[in-house]
Amino acid sequence: MTATVTGPHRVEHDLLGDREVPAEAYYGVHTLRAVENFPITGTPISAHTELVVALACVKQAAAQANHELGLLDRRRADAIVRACQEIRAGHLHDEFVVDVIQGGAGTSSNMNANEVVANRALELLGHPRGHYAELHPLEHVNLSQSTNDAYPTAVRIALQIGARQLRTTLTVLADAFSAKVVEFAPVVKMGRTQLQDAVPMTLGQEFGAFAVTIREDVERLGEACRLLLEINLGGTAIGTGLNAPEQYAATVCARLRDLTDLPLTTAVDLVEATWDVGAFVQLSGVLKRIAVKLSKICNDLRLLSSGPRTGLGEINLPAVQAGSSIMPGKVNPVIPEAVNQVAFRVIGHDTTVTLAAEGGQLQLNAFEPVIAHSLLDSLSLLTSACWTLTERCVTGITANADHLRHGVAHSIGTVTALNPSIGYTAATAVAAEALATGRGVRELVLERGLLSEAELDLLLSPERLALGPAGPGPFGGGQPTEGTSVTQRVSGS
Amino acid sequence: MTATVTGPHRVEHDLLGDREVPAEAYYGVHTLRAVENFPITGTPISAHTELVVALACVKQAAAQANHELGLLDRRRADAIVRACQEIRAGHLHDEFVVDVIQGGAGTSSNMNANEVVANRALELLGHPRGHYAELHPLEHVNLSQSTNDAYPTAVRIALQIGARQLRTTLTVLADAFSAKVVEFAPVVKMGRTQLQDAVPMTLGQEFGAFAVTIREDVERLGEACRLLLEINLGGTAIGTGLNAPEQYAATVCARLRDLTDLPLTTAVDLVEATWDVGAFVQLSGVLKRIAVKLSKICNDLRLLSSGPRTGLGEINLPAVQAGSSIMPGKVNPVIPEAVNQVAFRVIGHDTTVTLAAEGGQLQLNAFEPVIAHSLLDSLSLLTSACWTLTERCVTGITANADHLRHGVAHSIGTVTALNPSIGYTAATAVAAEALATGRGVRELVLERGLLSEAELDLLLSPERLALGPAGPGPFGGGQPTEGTSVTQRVSGS
Amino acid sequence: MTATVTGPHRVEHDLLGDREVPAEAYYGVHTLRAVENFPITGTPISAHTELVVALACVKQAAAQANHELGLLDRRRADAIVRACQEIRAGHLHDEFVVDVIQGGAGTSSNMNANEVVANRALELLGHPRGHYAELHPLEHVNLSQSTNDAYPTAVRIALQIGARQLRTTLTVLADAFSAKVVEFAPVVKMGRTQLQDAVPMTLGQEFGAFAVTIREDVERLGEACRLLLEINLGGTAIGTGLNAPEQYAATVCARLRDLTDLPLTTAVDLVEATWDVGAFVQLSGVLKRIAVKLSKICNDLRLLSSGPRTGLGEINLPAVQAGSSIMPGKVNPVIPEAVNQVAFRVIGHDTTVTLAAEGGQLQLNAFEPVIAHSLLDSLSLLTSACWTLTERCVTGITANADHLRHGVAHSIGTVTALNPSIGYTAATAVAAEALATGRGVRELVLERGLLSEAELDLLLSPERLALGPAGPGPFGGGQPTEGTSVTQRVSGS
Amino acid sequence: MTATVTGPHRVEHDLLGDREVPAEAYYGVHTLRAVENFPITGTPISAHTELVVALACVKQAAAQANHELGLLDRRRADAIVRACQEIRAGHLHDEFVVDVIQGGAGTSSNMNANEVVANRALELLGHPRGHYAELHPLEHVNLSQSTNDAYPTAVRIALQIGARQLRTTLTVLADAFSAKVVEFAPVVKMGRTQLQDAVPMTLGQEFGAFAVTIREDVERLGEACRLLLEINLGGTAIGTGLNAPEQYAATVCARLRDLTDLPLTTAVDLVEATWDVGAFVQLSGVLKRIAVKLSKICNDLRLLSSGPRTGLGEINLPAVQAGSSIMPGKVNPVIPEAVNQVAFRVIGHDTTVTLAAEGGQLQLNAFEPVIAHSLLDSLSLLTSACWTLTERCVTGITANADHLRHGVAHSIGTVTALNPSIGYTAATAVAAEALATGRGVRELVLERGLLSEAELDLLLSPERLALGPAGPGPFGGGQPTEGTSVTQRVSGS
Repeated sequence: MTATVTGPHRVEHDLLGDREVPAEAYYGVHTLRAVENFPITGTPISAHTELVVALACVKQAAAQANHELGLLDRRRADAIVRACQEIRAGHLHDEFVVDVIQGGAGTSSNMNANEVVANRALELLGHPRGHYAELHPLEHVNLSQSTNDAYPTAVRIALQIGARQLRTTLTVLADAFSAKVVEFAPVVKMGRTQLQDAVPMTLGQEFGAFAVTIREDVERLGEACRLLLEINLGGTAIGTGLNAPEQYAATVCARLRDLTDLPLTTAVDLVEATWDVGAFVQLSGVLKRIAVKLSKICNDLRLLSSGPRTGLGEINLPAVQAGSSIMPGKVNPVIPEAVNQVAFRVIGHDTTVTLAAEGGQLQLNAFEPVIAHSLLDSLSLLTSACWTLTERCVTGITANADHLRHGVAHSIGTVTALNPSIGYTAATAVAAEALATGRGVRELVLERGLLSEAELDLLLSPERLALGPAGPGPFGGGQPTEGTSVTQRVSGS
Repeated sequence: MTATVTGPHRVEHDLLGDREVPAEAYYGVHTLRAVENFPITGTPISAHTELVVALACVKQAAAQANHELGLLDRRRADAIVRACQEIRAGHLHDEFVVDVIQGGAGTSSNMNANEVVANRALELLGHPRGHYAELHPLEHVNLSQSTNDAYPTAVRIALQIGARQLRTTLTVLADAFSAKVVEFAPVVKMGRTQLQDAVPMTLGQEFGAFAVTIREDVERLGEACRLLLEINLGGTAIGTGLNAPEQYAATVCARLRDLTDLPLTTAVDLVEATWDVGAFVQLSGVLKRIAVKLSKICNDLRLLSSGPRTGLGEINLPAVQAGSSIMPGKVNPVIPEAVNQVAFRVIGHDTTVTLAAEGGQLQLNAFEPVIAHSLLDSLSLLTSACWTLTERCVTGITANADHLRHGVAHSIGTVTALNPSIGYTAATAVAAEALATGRGVRELVLERGLLSEAELDLLLSPERLALGPAGPGPFGGGQPTEGTSVTQRVSGS
Repeated sequence: MTATVTGPHRVEHDLLGDREVPAEAYYGVHTLRAVENFPITGTPISAHTELVVALACVKQAAAQANHELGLLDRRRADAIVRACQEIRAGHLHDEFVVDVIQGGAGTSSNMNANEVVANRALELLGHPRGHYAELHPLEHVNLSQSTNDAYPTAVRIALQIGARQLRTTLTVLADAFSAKVVEFAPVVKMGRTQLQDAVPMTLGQEFGAFAVTIREDVERLGEACRLLLEINLGGTAIGTGLNAPEQYAATVCARLRDLTDLPLTTAVDLVEATWDVGAFVQLSGVLKRIAVKLSKICNDLRLLSSGPRTGLGEINLPAVQAGSSIMPGKVNPVIPEAVNQVAFRVIGHDTTVTLAAEGGQLQLNAFEPVIAHSLLDSLSLLTSACWTLTERCVTGITANADHLRHGVAHSIGTVTALNPSIGYTAATAVAAEALATGRGVRELVLERGLLSEAELDLLLSPERLALGPAGPGPFGGGQPTEGTSVTQRVSGS
Repeated sequence: MTATVTGPHRVEHDLLGDREVPAEAYYGVHTLRAVENFPITGTPISAHTELVVALACVKQAAAQANHELGLLDRRRADAIVRACQEIRAGHLHDEFVVDVIQGGAGTSSNMNANEVVANRALELLGHPRGHYAELHPLEHVNLSQSTNDAYPTAVRIALQIGARQLRTTLTVLADAFSAKVVEFAPVVKMGRTQLQDAVPMTLGQEFGAFAVTIREDVERLGEACRLLLEINLGGTAIGTGLNAPEQYAATVCARLRDLTDLPLTTAVDLVEATWDVGAFVQLSGVLKRIAVKLSKICNDLRLLSSGPRTGLGEINLPAVQAGSSIMPGKVNPVIPEAVNQVAFRVIGHDTTVTLAAEGGQLQLNAFEPVIAHSLLDSLSLLTSACWTLTERCVTGITANADHLRHGVAHSIGTVTALNPSIGYTAATAVAAEALATGRGVRELVLERGLLSEAELDLLLSPERLALGPAGPGPFGGGQPTEGTSVTQRVSGS
């Protein structure tokens, strides 16, 4: 793995000695050794665009702060700033080559950033790459920093970027469900608890609940992100701030706020902030929550669209591809299935994050790279999944309204509405007979002389049953006027 | 399992037919069948005292609301209220006999509560148990309710009670760590990253970080509990409010607020609120976060106290029992070890909660009982663990200050403080020679003529190294005045 | 927690000094301190009967081996053996009072056993409890042992006992499914993939697959248990065998084989065997696999029995209790739901075991108690769940054969059988039209002149479709003779 | 996402209508739609080379079997076989473009394979791509197959390939540890339990245990792979074998055995085999076990190499890169850290696999793609991690023998060896005084007149302590001759 570099090269030096580096590379010896040390996933950190951008933000803010505090001259500071701006604009990302899984608590990612910024800055200053006497990756680019504050700060900013995209996509998905609420408001159907027929509701209510639950997760995600706003820049090695001047933490935080437009703050206890990964665990828990809800919704969509002939057959998902290599005409709920699988990955990543978090020791958590990789991957997966679910599935769902109304008319569960009038015990007897004989609730109640036709008309109206006197919430709500008084009158008798 | 009841009994009736119930039992036929159906864990729900109390709160509030709304006469309402008050005061808990793991989405727990309350109320009214014509478990005690709103509401209240205890105990633990901050403020030691010697800090800083991190979790727990304040009482079967009068939801929520002193609110979308278990997933995620942090802290305590002769030997945990059946005099860190194991259980319970949450279908999650059981168990375990950790370990920890100071004096990591003066490259050379030869940083720097004795005295002062110019946070902070200027002067040169 | 013992007591001494112990207690000072140190779960180790029995087996075998090797005189050895026999017979279990979650890698459980055995043996020899000069818990009962070999050996034996019960119950469950295979062999139904109608099968095949999959797990469980047969008795503290005579390991293993009737062997590398918990992780993985399968089966049972009017309605689970406190006549699949929840717990316990296993350090895993507790709990839960599922659900399942046959007759999926005759493309066109128009496959094929009535009779016979030419396996298999030739003929054309 | 294809194209047709496909593409309309439907991870299935090869094996074996059974003419069969051979040799892999996470239970992967094989076969026969009338992806390449048997069979073969590599690499790692056993056999050190000094051992024993534990995992992995040998080819859609001729299952299995050199067998119950994913769960559990052990070993390596001045300092890991961007000369255990993180990913993947397995419904598990992706990723990660750990860490580890011997000489734990001579109680008193005063065990025993100098010389010899009379197992074993007799003599006195 320590193959000699072929082709043009320059020689760099580190703790281990001299090492040839490809002449055209912006990265340097530290990066090269890391690439050799960690041939783990084959995925470079450039796969996480947000992380590369965030590292550039940190390096730029540090250069600005160091210059303000008199530690870095204008010429070098400007060159570093320009290099960082280029990276933030999307350039040079393919120079971020270290593996997403790497030992060293992010040191190699930080070194990779230091070296690329330094060599690009050198170039901008008219020097060849590797002439670190002019501008040094560690002594200038990394000035007043340690991996232990620069890297977690970059990870937090990267997660903010990723989370912002997910919040947007979740909102779009919720909107798609909300749009269906209007469409499905008049579609009465049987609600089910424990997969058994319960009492009537509308399909609009069912889809409305999906919208509501997703919007709640948008809020939870926002809250989790607020914890990420607390950074530890200025803590340097272990949070004691060794080698960083007194005003550095406040200054660099202000610069980073400007660059990112995020209301970042410096942690009060930098020692704690340096080893603590609680904010990552919290975010992971919220992503898991989102995954659980998306999976539940997709399970429901698959169940409601089961059929076409021997399933529930309540709704139709849009056909997006042929479903079978052997069964002609079969169409499968492939989009929800893909989302289910994304959910399982995200939940698995939460286990990974938990283990990595638990494994932190003393003044640092050495496993932040796998935490960052897992969280960024989860954010990306969920964003893709929500987008696909919206575009390829939810917006095209249609309802089988007649089939649903027929189900309500023939159900036994409507007997529940007669409880206040005839009592739970009598209603149970009616239900039992209906179940045993296959007959209907209405005819049995009439036959037993428990209620009149008029009373039954009122009590068993599907719409009234579905919308209920206590009110249905914001979607598909009804007018619970006379119904309520009847219920109360009968109940009070 | 459907053994005939021996001894005095009464006969009750349900959907399945007649069934003998022990005469002295306050529970009834529904409970009895559930006991026979679920011989799963052997642990009755009475093991979760909070849950029994919470069920009584719900039943009492419902009776009050039903009476206010004219659905329940004063005599019956009063009897139900008195029965509930007794249960809330700790009576009759051994009548809550259904297994903590039960099918039916909590129906059996709700039925158990309905029956115990009804029979105790009957007794208070002078009727024999089982004379449900006078006061019926379902038609009166369960009036305007379904398991699907009564049970989750009770679970939420129970979790609030459990979480309040945990918040208290966590605070006590944080206080114990804070008390050590003062004691350990002057104890200088080497900080470590990735288990390798890094730069100096104080033991007070290290313990202060423990306090800070735990206090943050107290806040997170409080936030998670706020989500539990939203209840779905009034939604009845599937959230449509069937059979509950219009004003019921608001009224019963008000009564429950009075009883519990919790700022409960009714969910806006009751259909969503009936199946959604997101608040439980969120709480579980936060409990996992707490577990992860406690485990990390205990890992550190065990590591710092390793020895006595061939370990780190930085601190001493109080000896609370003999450590070995074969090795005389051995004392082990048994209290942190127990806390680690509690953490592993809580993290395992989070997996259980996740699976149960994901398994919810359509209008209900049938697996709420195992969610409730797991969360209540986690709360109880963490509370016990924090209490034990505080009382049996943290308060009695002592430091080996001389050994720690010696470590700092002989460390190589202090060379980091010379970076601003001699540069990273020169400092690396010094460190490498120190490592290879076993010699000291100070003598090597002098020998190489890099700095004077006076400069070294200033730069390598352990206290200055530990407290740093950027400031140490709220615990063990120093006076970063002259130190900063020196650093900057040297750095600027 | 270190409350003074009230009532009669004796004084015992340990590393920490003197301590009053209740006079009537068979346990001693080490146990008492552990009880005070670990008020964690409230569940004593006596809850795991198998573990108490297994500890007694280990102590008895050790006494016998020590006597054979001349380290323990006959009088003491005999008294220890008798005390152990009593415990194995179920006596004195309530003296095993230490918490199931305890620090110390099982030291407290081992001490508890040593003390109970010693005091009962003293009693048998005519001495008062606590007169350890005559017979000492550590110097005689624990002779040639350390917690580090005695405890994991006992845990392995306890797991064998628990696993034997589970294997038996799994087999009973598989038999119950097999019994249904015969009953359901003629019941033709639509098979489903991805919840969409696929092609026909029999209900007997479906239930037969449940039996087959469970029997496979019985085998896997047996394999996992074989790993538990390797013990480390004789390794003492860290596996080097310090203080145990040369022949001890072989001798005690032979005695333990006699006592347990298990083909135990001594591990080849006792150092590895002392810290390695791989066999526990393997067992946990297999228990998780069993949980996953049981959960899948219960999900299917709940889905197939969904209804009664608007679900799949294929089978009926026996009604074992009323299903709702509000919906009269509702019957829920409560038994499968309970089993699902057990599965979620077992999967959660696997996470716990994984974390505890990963946390082992150097020569020992300090977290074996929580591993043992979790595994024994999982075994017990699964055993209860399988028993309940068999007795309260599977044996009473009935099929709605007419409804199922009707579903096959009206399905579109049967068109698959025409592929070899009319080709995938033509079959797709038929299926698409059937789906769009609601018409039947048979009439469309006739209308399009693709096949004759006679050919369709042959190709679309439900039984032929279900049993297939490739043969259905051991359950509900058919006679694939003429069918095959037809298929081939048509296909070859 | 359904962008019009620009550039040269051909038109293909499926259930959804016409669709332009790039002219040069070997894949077709089904693949194209899948690519549009699943923009999830950005990783195509070609990332799993083993899976592409395995799909080609299945298609080739099916063509051969179909030809043998008279279903496919020689010309088409030969063309298909040649196309498959090319893919197996590594060609055309970049045509396998569907996402690793896809809905449809693998249908898209199977369709991708069918289309690439068909178009390459068409090309070999001199036809343009897309001329499926000549050779059809479904009617010829997929003949006698369904995704439901072809895909899982391919996954099983792919996992065998991946597992074979892992077994090889694990063995190489075990060998590296074994090589250290010889080197470290004479290095005596203190063993530790619960991080506290226990009794002496050799470093060779410690490393030998690593080798032993890994070799055990090689065996476990082999066992798990045996379960994967059972395939369900011939079951077609749901295991009933519809549309596959009677002899097909046996014939295709034989051909696949020839191609893969694996002892594959056809499952006895194809209905069960079609939905059951137990073999994947079992493999995942074993991979988790491997991860747990590797993580434990890496934790130990990091702990033993902690320092250089204030840690345990027992061993030195080779320096492979500079460890810090701020702390000069710092070298970190980056390779074990990377392996720890791989372990956390693999454990997370096990959670994913578990959830996906539990989510299977009725006759199929729709989530096999994420199971396959996770398992193949875990195999690849573990293989990389073992290779890196071997090459970049283990082979270069050195011991600090003098430091270790000094630790033994000054330890208290050696007092354990005196138990048989002076008793646990007297030994405890000596240990307590040593701990309190900092004095040595030897001098205290002499001072108290408990043993003579000669007896102590014999009993406290580090080598004798480490190797013990019960024997040390296969690695670094000693000669337990006189030592044993002394121990016994003293003990017997």
